[in-house]
Amino acid sequence: MTEDYTGFNFKCQARCSHTQARAGVFATPHGAVETPRFMPVGTLANVKTLTPAQLEAAGAQMVLANTYHLHLQPGEGIVAAAGGLHKFMAWPGPILTDSGGFQVFSLSEMRTISEDGVTFRSPRDGQMIRLTPERSIEIQNQLGADVIMAFDECPPYPAPRQDVEAAVDRTFRWLQRCMQAHSRSDQALFGIVQGGVYPDLRSRAAQQLVDLDLPGYAIGGVSVGEPGEAIEHIVKLTAPLLPPEKPRYLMGIGTYREMAQAVASGVDMFDCVIPTRLARHGTALVAGERWNLKNARFKEDFSPLDESCPCYTCQNFSRAYLSHLVRAKEILGHTLLAIHNVTELIRFARRMREAILADRFTEEFARWLAPRVDLD
Amino acid sequence: MTEDYTGFNFKCQARCSHTQARAGVFATPHGAVETPRFMPVGTLANVKTLTPAQLEAAGAQMVLANTYHLHLQPGEGIVAAAGGLHKFMAWPGPILTDSGGFQVFSLSEMRTISEDGVTFRSPRDGQMIRLTPERSIEIQNQLGADVIMAFDECPPYPAPRQDVEAAVDRTFRWLQRCMQAHSRSDQALFGIVQGGVYPDLRSRAAQQLVDLDLPGYAIGGVSVGEPGEAIEHIVKLTAPLLPPEKPRYLMGIGTYREMAQAVASGVDMFDCVIPTRLARHGTALVAGERWNLKNARFKEDFSPLDESCPCYTCQNFSRAYLSHLVRAKEILGHTLLAIHNVTELIRFARRMREAILADRFTEEFARWLAPRVDLD
Repeated sequence: MTEDYTGFNFKCQARCSHTQARAGVFATPHGAVETPRFMPVGTLANVKTLTPAQLEAAGAQMVLANTYHLHLQPGEGIVAAAGGLHKFMAWPGPILTDSGGFQVFSLSEMRTISEDGVTFRSPRDGQMIRLTPERSIEIQNQLGADVIMAFDECPPYPAPRQDVEAAVDRTFRWLQRCMQAHSRSDQALFGIVQGGVYPDLRSRAAQQLVDLDLPGYAIGGVSVGEPGEAIEHIVKLTAPLLPPEKPRYLMGIGTYREMAQAVASGVDMFDCVIPTRLARHGTALVAGERWNLKNARFKEDFSPLDESCPCYTCQNFSRAYLSHLVRAKEILGHTLLAIHNVTELIRFARRMREAILADRFTEEFARWLAPRVDLD
Repeated sequence: MTEDYTGFNFKCQARCSHTQARAGVFATPHGAVETPRFMPVGTLANVKTLTPAQLEAAGAQMVLANTYHLHLQPGEGIVAAAGGLHKFMAWPGPILTDSGGFQVFSLSEMRTISEDGVTFRSPRDGQMIRLTPERSIEIQNQLGADVIMAFDECPPYPAPRQDVEAAVDRTFRWLQRCMQAHSRSDQALFGIVQGGVYPDLRSRAAQQLVDLDLPGYAIGGVSVGEPGEAIEHIVKLTAPLLPPEKPRYLMGIGTYREMAQAVASGVDMFDCVIPTRLARHGTALVAGERWNLKNARFKEDFSPLDESCPCYTCQNFSRAYLSHLVRAKEILGHTLLAIHNVTELIRFARRMREAILADRFTEEFARWLAPRVDLD
């Protein structure tokens, strides 16, 4: 780990004999993250519908928050005045903030991009807002997460090769400005490998980043519309190019198969809004499937969602009760499904970890590691 | 207590020297209710936004559920097949169901009322539904709450004397049919005193009910639009007419002053949707006031809602954080405010109980017992 950073450390505990999969521990100033790990997303300084106590009971270690959203509301000044994100949202464990890059490119309108940065119209109040690498880091320094992300240019998918190439080069120049601007040794700055679906661009981007000896590396730009095959291909190609002694984070991915394939390629950390978003739509993640609780078959099904799940929802409520809450549009239904879905993805990643520690990863996860058929 | 009922018992533990206030314990088959007590309302078999674990931490003992709503959705058959309300909603403590009478008269359209019962159009699917005293009790027997309520006719407020008088007499005839229909000795059937704002009708209704030696008595028809003075007046007049050895329940009331005044008149139990409804509107109950968290003064206020409150919300979050969640329309804001508001009203009633036990009720609650000025 780069010695500029205090309190950070990544230790690999075990490697799979057949794949690049590994189990490790990523130490941060606010505690350890056992990898592979799924990280719930708390966009506006809360994981939607869940209290920190419920998150902790679900097995969460590191959670995310979004720089773009928090800059718009309530503003980093208020978070800093509260004593930082950990105190503001009452999450004592590790936190990661993204840089706002992805949101600026995917959510905002009226944006103008220059070498200096991006100007866009706030969807909240119509004000013009400017984000540059320096400004993103300054905001993230104020928010105070353990891991902060470089401000990157995220081209849409699909994009022509020359646009992706220009974005890779700009992302690298912006990363150097981020490193220059970064002022806190208790926050680890991760770089992001871009490069779209172009192997040589991914490879070039990875090599540029590795030379900077960062405390961690992310694979970005794989969730903006790519089909599963493309994600697998990119991750398989990119992850092994990243230094083995540093944590690897695949941004925005939280589906069973993509996580398993990424772990097999050597990825350690994941995040995705999917468990809480599905919960708000009345959908549960069970045994690798998605169940819509409005389905008539659940109306009189008095078994728990998943007999083997230790979560509060499965320990206390039936599918019939959850179906009732979802049909009646009761918010508690969203909360109970979010508890289960977040627990489910954390458990999935933890089961991979345990399988790697026992060197049984390829046997136990054969279902997800087999060549893709039309399952997803 | 009527010997027809098993597992029920009301013991008075202490009486106030200056008022009719009393502290007691109401035993039910699913546990004891220490009185005075505020009971959170779980209309559709859940107290909106709160898990049973959060309710228990808030100090809830008995909770309500609504016969009218549960009959429409999911239907009492599903609740019975689940093993009854306690199991369905995972609330192991005492539960009370109302009879549906109030909702039929206040919520439903196209209703026709006859001596036999009420027919109305379901707001859910437009079907015509018939509720009679027998049907209400049958549904409540299937739901399986500890306390069930008689099916009553609730005239609107204000109503002419002759309408209220007719409703009182019909309610009494319907009560006798409810008693006839009631088939479970592990459920206590409470009668409801109606009579509007007419002292002689309240008195007549109370006397009729007392003669039937029921296991508990409720004061109804005081939340349908009456001003505070009328509520106080009715309760002051009615409560002392009810037998001292039975629990007294004031239906639908959950404001500080009205609860304190009712306790001073000898009422033991209260329910109201107000703490969860206010929470959904971003409002907190603090120190007898209602605070709208959207107010600018909370944006940078990093103190808890109430320094002296032991609830999860006050122990972990600032007014600034709650204000942020409410402004950002995050559901967690509703949940955290509901936790606080429910805790607050339960604590308010519990503080009255403790004051009565110490015979300091009139001193400690002087603020709420003083003659009404324009406070509320």
